Amino acid sequence: MIVITSPNISEERISEIVRQIELGGVSAHVSRGVDRTVIGIIGKADPHLAEHIRSMNGVENVIKISKSYKLASRDFHPDDTVIEVKGVKIGGDNLVVMGGPCAVETPEQIDEIARLVKAAGGQVLRGGAFKPRTGPYSFQGIGVEGLKWMKEAGDKYGLVTITEVMTPEYVDVCAEYADIMQVGTRNMQNFDLLRKLGTIRNPVLLKRGFSSTYDEWLNAAEYILAGGNPNVMLCERGIRTFETYTRNTFDLAAIPAVKTLSHLPVIADPSHATGRRELVEPMTKASLAAGADGMIIEMHTDPDNSATGDGVQSLFPDQFANLLKDLEKLAPLLGKKFDTPKEPAEAFATWVK
Amino acid sequence: MIVITSPNISEERISEIVRQIELGGVSAHVSRGVDRTVIGIIGKADPHLAEHIRSMNGVENVIKISKSYKLASRDFHPDDTVIEVKGVKIGGDNLVVMGGPCAVETPEQIDEIARLVKAAGGQVLRGGAFKPRTGPYSFQGIGVEGLKWMKEAGDKYGLVTITEVMTPEYVDVCAEYADIMQVGTRNMQNFDLLRKLGTIRNPVLLKRGFSSTYDEWLNAAEYILAGGNPNVMLCERGIRTFETYTRNTFDLAAIPAVKTLSHLPVIADPSHATGRRELVEPMTKASLAAGADGMIIEMHTDPDNSATGDGVQSLFPDQFANLLKDLEKLAPLLGKKFDTPKEPAEAFATWVK
Amino acid sequence: MIVITSPNISEERISEIVRQIELGGVSAHVSRGVDRTVIGIIGKADPHLAEHIRSMNGVENVIKISKSYKLASRDFHPDDTVIEVKGVKIGGDNLVVMGGPCAVETPEQIDEIARLVKAAGGQVLRGGAFKPRTGPYSFQGIGVEGLKWMKEAGDKYGLVTITEVMTPEYVDVCAEYADIMQVGTRNMQNFDLLRKLGTIRNPVLLKRGFSSTYDEWLNAAEYILAGGNPNVMLCERGIRTFETYTRNTFDLAAIPAVKTLSHLPVIADPSHATGRRELVEPMTKASLAAGADGMIIEMHTDPDNSATGDGVQSLFPDQFANLLKDLEKLAPLLGKKFDTPKEPAEAFATWVK
Amino acid sequence: MIVITSPNISEERISEIVRQIELGGVSAHVSRGVDRTVIGIIGKADPHLAEHIRSMNGVENVIKISKSYKLASRDFHPDDTVIEVKGVKIGGDNLVVMGGPCAVETPEQIDEIARLVKAAGGQVLRGGAFKPRTGPYSFQGIGVEGLKWMKEAGDKYGLVTITEVMTPEYVDVCAEYADIMQVGTRNMQNFDLLRKLGTIRNPVLLKRGFSSTYDEWLNAAEYILAGGNPNVMLCERGIRTFETYTRNTFDLAAIPAVKTLSHLPVIADPSHATGRRELVEPMTKASLAAGADGMIIEMHTDPDNSATGDGVQSLFPDQFANLLKDLEKLAPLLGKKFDTPKEPAEAFATWVK
Repeated sequence: MIVITSPNISEERISEIVRQIELGGVSAHVSRGVDRTVIGIIGKADPHLAEHIRSMNGVENVIKISKSYKLASRDFHPDDTVIEVKGVKIGGDNLVVMGGPCAVETPEQIDEIARLVKAAGGQVLRGGAFKPRTGPYSFQGIGVEGLKWMKEAGDKYGLVTITEVMTPEYVDVCAEYADIMQVGTRNMQNFDLLRKLGTIRNPVLLKRGFSSTYDEWLNAAEYILAGGNPNVMLCERGIRTFETYTRNTFDLAAIPAVKTLSHLPVIADPSHATGRRELVEPMTKASLAAGADGMIIEMHTDPDNSATGDGVQSLFPDQFANLLKDLEKLAPLLGKKFDTPKEPAEAFATWVK
Repeated sequence: MIVITSPNISEERISEIVRQIELGGVSAHVSRGVDRTVIGIIGKADPHLAEHIRSMNGVENVIKISKSYKLASRDFHPDDTVIEVKGVKIGGDNLVVMGGPCAVETPEQIDEIARLVKAAGGQVLRGGAFKPRTGPYSFQGIGVEGLKWMKEAGDKYGLVTITEVMTPEYVDVCAEYADIMQVGTRNMQNFDLLRKLGTIRNPVLLKRGFSSTYDEWLNAAEYILAGGNPNVMLCERGIRTFETYTRNTFDLAAIPAVKTLSHLPVIADPSHATGRRELVEPMTKASLAAGADGMIIEMHTDPDNSATGDGVQSLFPDQFANLLKDLEKLAPLLGKKFDTPKEPAEAFATWVK
Repeated sequence: MIVITSPNISEERISEIVRQIELGGVSAHVSRGVDRTVIGIIGKADPHLAEHIRSMNGVENVIKISKSYKLASRDFHPDDTVIEVKGVKIGGDNLVVMGGPCAVETPEQIDEIARLVKAAGGQVLRGGAFKPRTGPYSFQGIGVEGLKWMKEAGDKYGLVTITEVMTPEYVDVCAEYADIMQVGTRNMQNFDLLRKLGTIRNPVLLKRGFSSTYDEWLNAAEYILAGGNPNVMLCERGIRTFETYTRNTFDLAAIPAVKTLSHLPVIADPSHATGRRELVEPMTKASLAAGADGMIIEMHTDPDNSATGDGVQSLFPDQFANLLKDLEKLAPLLGKKFDTPKEPAEAFATWVK
Repeated sequence: MIVITSPNISEERISEIVRQIELGGVSAHVSRGVDRTVIGIIGKADPHLAEHIRSMNGVENVIKISKSYKLASRDFHPDDTVIEVKGVKIGGDNLVVMGGPCAVETPEQIDEIARLVKAAGGQVLRGGAFKPRTGPYSFQGIGVEGLKWMKEAGDKYGLVTITEVMTPEYVDVCAEYADIMQVGTRNMQNFDLLRKLGTIRNPVLLKRGFSSTYDEWLNAAEYILAGGNPNVMLCERGIRTFETYTRNTFDLAAIPAVKTLSHLPVIADPSHATGRRELVEPMTKASLAAGADGMIIEMHTDPDNSATGDGVQSLFPDQFANLLKDLEKLAPLLGKKFDTPKEPAEAFATWVK
């Protein structure tokens, strides 16, 4: 940590700042410049010492030069984390594709979509049973029943399952029926939820808050890791900017950037990041090229008649299958393996758009 | 709702869109333009019909022209809502000042600050017992014990109390000890928390999410109102932008804008919006001029040595008292009453910065 | 300037960094921390040395602790700058109101509006003769002819005039007919225009770029000041954010913030910042309370039929006059003088909305 | 265009709005909804009619449903535009790589970098002779002399050249020495510059303003096209957001999005978009996958000692060469050709980092 003083600060004030730093149990190193004095803090300072010093008279700024997260940092854990769930590896040189509907609607719907995800070469089935909704009058998901239907479909086709959990009370029931727990963008800083997820061992997919910095995102991951659950993957799903043509602005550079800062796997969500079906295919390929360890993609057998909201960004089954075939060709050139079995086009014939 | 079609769409496709609209239980009104056809939807459409129609081929856009919230809308409730709590009125032509520390630290600290808030003319004592923290290693608040100390101080000096509640489980205990429940910026879309707050009758101060639109903010209020709790006030606390000199960008125009859209009282938070002590005084006056129904201001007897983080934006007691005296002079010129008893400067002498 | 090294950097690399710093003609002060070494740069470094050092291997970050602008800085010039033009003072404890249409349309229109601005107590007549337009097919202003009409109206009613200049070639002709040169938000970093404005002595009103930081804004002012023109005032006109209800987000805290960083006068533009007539009155008062030295407000005798685009945010003459009367009452409580002669309501009777 | 009225508007007011629309030379189509009336405007309305109608009492909103640009629109020109300059094709299924230093420094520097760009397989040499600088005290470029050195290097190695032009006066001299004119992000809405560029025939690379929408960007292109110059290519170089780890936020989805809206080629600038050397390689590949028609990449033989500012984001020659080899492998899988001659690694041996 570095303390930058105001211009022309008195020696007395400098001594007081040094005294306060030392009361914090660390040592101070004073270096006088032409118009400002800089005080380096040596040793691991308590997290709120920075705020305390910043608030002192004569202090212009305090700059943290060590990261506030530890377990999530690559400094702490140089090798890529590889999470294994039911034989599916996430991280390292593996590429994982998660596909499925925005929301589970009926047992038949989720069973058929699961069949198609598997046939296309996907490894994970996504589906929401509880849906976060901006307004109280929108469809809120069908609850636990939907989790059971998704589990049956996942078991039947040998797919790992992922679903969103929105509040601490639901963590146990979601963890009973689904394999991976998804934390949505609105809950990235729901700290009680993060703490609860630290107490289980199911892998957690932590979506980036739609206006969170990389630092806040990795600190949110730190809550889960610090709780004892090492199985955390990050998910870039777009941030909020002034541009409204796309649903969000897909911050694809976050993928290689966060992978340099952290050892955790990073998944891309081109469906929510763009909000437009026609952009999902190019942006899925772009996220692979940017270094993503996987993608979570919305696919629906009848998006035009999906009653749950996100049909506009869902791929048709044949689009999904063709995209995965392209990923299979691109992956080896980009240092990834994606050699899951894939059925021929006929398998999707009934669903061609 | 208005449906805008793609250029050169076929009559068949238009008929199909109309059919889907009518299946939604509303009627359609087709109007052909030079390059596009526009279909007006007449009647109250189900919330997800818009998404469904938007996802259809041949549809370029669907525009909602009615608001998605009802109870929070001024169309629904033309008169200002005035919330009364322990004789303090919030809304209408009343001005309310909420003051206190970021966090409750000791019984003595909160008692002394309560005395100073009252002496300065404030009506509400703020203080956090549970603190949301970006990183898991920061001070997290001292919990229920702090709520008890704050309640004692509030009762002793005749102040209404407000504290932040972060998760549904804590709503009941917070409501037992504090008068007003604060929802923080990170929880504005914690929908289970909002639903739970709809089941109590304590007033709720709903802070705007740091990158939430007015529409999302009012929809969040709608969750609480729809649950049966009519006592909701909104709080503008700054949004996140590219500017980093201030902690946030204080969107002061949100105050008159939201008051035209809604009948709910709007409180300003100049402390968090600016994050800089020297900006709190001018921005508090500016928020009064913009039409705020009150302000929530951080004040501390020893901000430079506060261990809880936000000292840098806390006023000293004498600054706080002088600011409230200025508000008393300005209020009548701006259509507000703020004639609470205020003690002379001597009362703050021991705390002059 | 402070150089922060990567963790575990070699002594050789540190020596090389120090050598490069010293080649830059300044001295280095090395201070070793637990996980990083910090090198303080002592003396005034050449502006691009920071970039050079930042690009070296082993350097994690370089932090500038002195400001990059000098003439615009309050460190350099502690007292408020007061600009005087034709007897009107801008800055210090003076309040100036600039009013008028978005664009000059006819000699009669600008003459009548000038009469109303004067009658209301305004000191400066605004009006655009050259208009920046997002698209090439919109009204682009009527050019030099409009400047002449505005000059006649200004002379007739004893008003200072301000108009926007968009390109270096037009600076001389604009300076011949108008008193104050306005630089629009899109041109804040049109450096050739800024340089040209540094060569004249007319006061310049420099609007903030709609996504410029305070630092970039003050550096843009520095271009004009460095050219030899000391008469620069800043104008906050809103920044671009995700919120679309208002035309821009009015960053009102920029006013007191920039006034602490700089001695230059700061003018507020509530018309463009909000883009909504009903928000102009509260936000004008709020900008006074925030410490603005003046406001530039759009007023039109027939905004509903103005052909030039911004009618939606223009006040009617009587609204403008009533607002200025309110400013006259508020100003003394906020440390400003605004005692210009103001005619009674009858003067605006024919223009009551 | 669609006009949405306020709730409960009178028939008289509706008639007046219709009258105003018809005065605008277009026809109106009234459709009454439950709480609002919608008026469709049929025919091509004058650009400022929308603003005029929006400003009328009783009008809540006016929505443009046709685009404000024409020549830049794919509706107008369905096929991809392919720009040919000195035998290099830009657009369609061609991939073009532009490489070179931020700024031209010496004849030797630009000659050697030109040799390396050609050897790596690049087709265009970039280099700035006039540099836009945030502050007046930074290196401003060496001017026309630099253009001559770059032209010599381009001619010698058979490379097309591109350089930034910042003001209308310099267009002619830049067009005399360089092939492609670059408009920087700060000048995207420097309308006089755009108009001047419409009068020449050199291709123009139009960088997106760092907080401009797609619509504003395409309208800026429209200025050049409307002036008669059809050779416009767009360049995504990152937008400004709250995230500061990267220099900008690379809005990669803008590439496929803008290509659906427009027929113009789109070039990606991973160097400025990320501002970090280590992110340039993955983001260059990602931009190819997203559908970019080319990339403009900073490369320098000695970035650590470049005196011009952007060394931190410049690739070393061997990194640049290896990246182009990877692009050659990826291109065919992504529908692009990039089969320029490329020399073996030895050619870059002297410059291995």
